[in-house]
Amino acid sequence: MTTESDFIAALRALATDPAARGLLDDAAVLEIGGAKLVLTHDMIVEGVHFLPDDPPGDIAWKLVAVNLSDLAAKGAKPLGVLLGYTLAGDDAWNEAFIAGLRQTLSAFRVALFGGDTVAASPGTARALGLTAIGLADASPSRAGAAPGDHLWVSGTIGDGGAGLRIARRELDGPAALVERYRQPRPRLELGQALAPFVHAMMDVSDGLLIDAGRMADASSLAVEIDLAVLPLSASFISMLGEDREARLDAATMGDDYELLFAAPEAQAVELLALAERLGIPLTRIGEFAQGAGLRLVDGAETVPLPARLGYEHVPK
Amino acid sequence: MTTESDFIAALRALATDPAARGLLDDAAVLEIGGAKLVLTHDMIVEGVHFLPDDPPGDIAWKLVAVNLSDLAAKGAKPLGVLLGYTLAGDDAWNEAFIAGLRQTLSAFRVALFGGDTVAASPGTARALGLTAIGLADASPSRAGAAPGDHLWVSGTIGDGGAGLRIARRELDGPAALVERYRQPRPRLELGQALAPFVHAMMDVSDGLLIDAGRMADASSLAVEIDLAVLPLSASFISMLGEDREARLDAATMGDDYELLFAAPEAQAVELLALAERLGIPLTRIGEFAQGAGLRLVDGAETVPLPARLGYEHVPK
Repeated sequence: MTTESDFIAALRALATDPAARGLLDDAAVLEIGGAKLVLTHDMIVEGVHFLPDDPPGDIAWKLVAVNLSDLAAKGAKPLGVLLGYTLAGDDAWNEAFIAGLRQTLSAFRVALFGGDTVAASPGTARALGLTAIGLADASPSRAGAAPGDHLWVSGTIGDGGAGLRIARRELDGPAALVERYRQPRPRLELGQALAPFVHAMMDVSDGLLIDAGRMADASSLAVEIDLAVLPLSASFISMLGEDREARLDAATMGDDYELLFAAPEAQAVELLALAERLGIPLTRIGEFAQGAGLRLVDGAETVPLPARLGYEHVPK
Repeated sequence: MTTESDFIAALRALATDPAARGLLDDAAVLEIGGAKLVLTHDMIVEGVHFLPDDPPGDIAWKLVAVNLSDLAAKGAKPLGVLLGYTLAGDDAWNEAFIAGLRQTLSAFRVALFGGDTVAASPGTARALGLTAIGLADASPSRAGAAPGDHLWVSGTIGDGGAGLRIARRELDGPAALVERYRQPRPRLELGQALAPFVHAMMDVSDGLLIDAGRMADASSLAVEIDLAVLPLSASFISMLGEDREARLDAATMGDDYELLFAAPEAQAVELLALAERLGIPLTRIGEFAQGAGLRLVDGAETVPLPARLGYEHVPK
């Protein structure tokens, strides 16, 4: 079987236009006149990314939100989306999806520009695709971190992953966490505010550790992360605690859709003022240095890397 | 079961942004600064739009070409595409698809900007989506035809549909027609040349009659088409003849990916000069008038409309 990594490597060889950013970034960034157009496309497939009995409205929300999170990570203000939809013959499902889509587009003030509906026989797995288009003034890549830059993250980490475990009935926990999983809130306003002055930015979708490692790799640097300062929510702590195991869990769960960014030390005051102004916590969780790879500490103590750093698209 | 028409009507209620053109056009047209950005998204699903044993390279070609044909119809020069791909575990298939994609992008000088690959379990029907992005100076809608305008079509009609019958082994015929079906050539250069001065334009994908009827409906006019002047290729005639039955067949088959456009009578000389310059036949096949509906003639004789005007996405 072709591995996903082989296939993506083969696509990468075709993606030579600078706008594609080597297929290594959250989105493509295309210069049109003076404007930067940011484009992303994510697909979700029934039985792979969602289950037939997941609430269709939440699936619509998530499809839009994960794409908008890619735009947020590139500092873009979203303009609209194009939807690819498999109509697989279930009235109630389709109506609930449309209702969720309406609610989501309205919540994020995003237009529906177009798309395609394909009628498939009942029983065909639904495949949903979304292209999101936005405009940015500045659009930091993942690759711009400099030695000495601090690594920052927005919001709290681990809530979406914990919510998934509750949704799967693996654990009990607060409903607020399930909502964090089912209805992630892309950090659009924050992304636009950060983009002009951070050195590198991406969203945390696969897990904080794996995503931070990708930013370090893309920037040809090493990064050290301090588990002791990882921002955890009260809900997360009430459910899973805040010891080292819980922190490692939070840092590898994924589904956070928070922003991870690199900024020089001199910007710390400005960043904390921005956090205050937007009412979104921004936490300095690490630092970049010459070298390669990810290093983990818990306060003064070095912590061995866990076997699994997050969700891997690319089988090793 | 939700009909496709119900679903599209529900989507249309959400698509209130002018760029969406009410989901009634070939593509969305978004004004960015002074530029017109043209965006389209088409999906194809295994078992619905193609069969597992169709050549994967041709599927890649067709996925790109049908989207570029929508751009051509809006006068756009394509910039690039985003691909949504289901990796369903078949080395040879995936490699052949990539090779076809490479060939197609190179043939049309289109960039791969990005996309998404989802790993699905073997046996999951492949769902492929493509978003194509282009830039236009002028971008005629389907809705601009005026009473007295001539209806024109590019190239020849019926070749793709005849090719499909050969590919399905329903009939024997020249290999050139199978290629017209499997590797349609979007009329990009022609579309860009026509866009600034035609009144309305679209591509012929579902069948000449049904698509001409859509242009007339969108323009709140009637249209009359003369079967006697329908442009047929020598290959088509050698296979299916050129009597009225063959002409009706050609006009309802679809898969043409030619351009259909409305232009005032005064532009006929200019259009024929353009046809000469580009080496692409342009044929005047009808005329718009006040009223509604599609009327068919064969020279001096009125012809009743066939029961089926083309491929209908919308069940009646």
